[in-house]
Amino acid sequence: MHEMEQHLQLTLALLERTPATLDSLLRGLPDAWACSNEGEGTWTCYDVVRHLVHAEHTDWMPRLRMILETGETRVFPAFDREGGSQGEQKCFEELLDEFSQERAKNIAAVRVLDLSEDQMRMRGKHPALGAVTLSQLLATWAVHDMTHLHQIARVLGHQYRDAVGPWEAYLGVLHCSGHSS
Amino acid sequence: MHEMEQHLQLTLALLERTPATLDSLLRGLPDAWACSNEGEGTWTCYDVVRHLVHAEHTDWMPRLRMILETGETRVFPAFDREGGSQGEQKCFEELLDEFSQERAKNIAAVRVLDLSEDQMRMRGKHPALGAVTLSQLLATWAVHDMTHLHQIARVLGHQYRDAVGPWEAYLGVLHCSGHSS
Repeated sequence: MHEMEQHLQLTLALLERTPATLDSLLRGLPDAWACSNEGEGTWTCYDVVRHLVHAEHTDWMPRLRMILETGETRVFPAFDREGGSQGEQKCFEELLDEFSQERAKNIAAVRVLDLSEDQMRMRGKHPALGAVTLSQLLATWAVHDMTHLHQIARVLGHQYRDAVGPWEAYLGVLHCSGHSS
Repeated sequence: MHEMEQHLQLTLALLERTPATLDSLLRGLPDAWACSNEGEGTWTCYDVVRHLVHAEHTDWMPRLRMILETGETRVFPAFDREGGSQGEQKCFEELLDEFSQERAKNIAAVRVLDLSEDQMRMRGKHPALGAVTLSQLLATWAVHDMTHLHQIARVLGHQYRDAVGPWEAYLGVLHCSGHSS
């Protein structure tokens, strides 16, 4: 098959699985894995989850509501990729709990909206990308999860870059040059 | 920090999380996600899990035991990357169950061996790569999991390549050219 159209039920099916996926992988994982990055200026798994929590609060749902309420007449506020890194440092378990709770709330809120096909086609204005549709926003939410799951696998793999010895040649994740920071 | 040395407890901590991670992500996920690939000759999420199950049966533990028993005197049998694709087609849930069970058995078997530092340094002979150590084999087992988690995120993201519209530019997972097939 070729790529799918965005379909709300499929999008939600993926979005609702991400918290448990990250929980299974990261909860209780030793800090040597969870708090290591790929070098200066790159993110640890902890940083990635903090970014996902921040996006649940300030990105997806606020933009979705802006599209429904004001369409293209207002530009989305820029999203701060480093957001959430100030203030109190939560422990990893609290952060994973918060991600699960916020994601569940947001999914419930989307379901309540019972979006029509016409609403899916409504447009908003992205500060850099210009016109985008509500359907594209929903698809992006899901692919953003996959971008960061992809990154987490890469960050973890990186820690054993030397340890695998000659097998490095066969391990695809070690050849990913980091399309996501 | 720079890359870690292979450390048995850290390796097992990651290895033991992979089945639940994949279960959380893939169990019950609609076929439109789980049974789609990245184009002709590439793998679906189902194919990836089948490959992981096959490796639990025929790759990691048999090679580990060969190193302990015969060192470099015998070359590892080649691993069939397409193995497990013949014969009965199991449903995805059965495959996920089998992966959990086989992984748990293999981890228990490693723990029972109570490997010493001397054993970690023992060498085996890979058919293409030549001399490899038991420590490298263990590290590779874990990074192989990450390679395929990375692949699964990429395969899922790919399905919405068109659906995200202009956001494609920002979504790193869509820029990964597939270092793992």
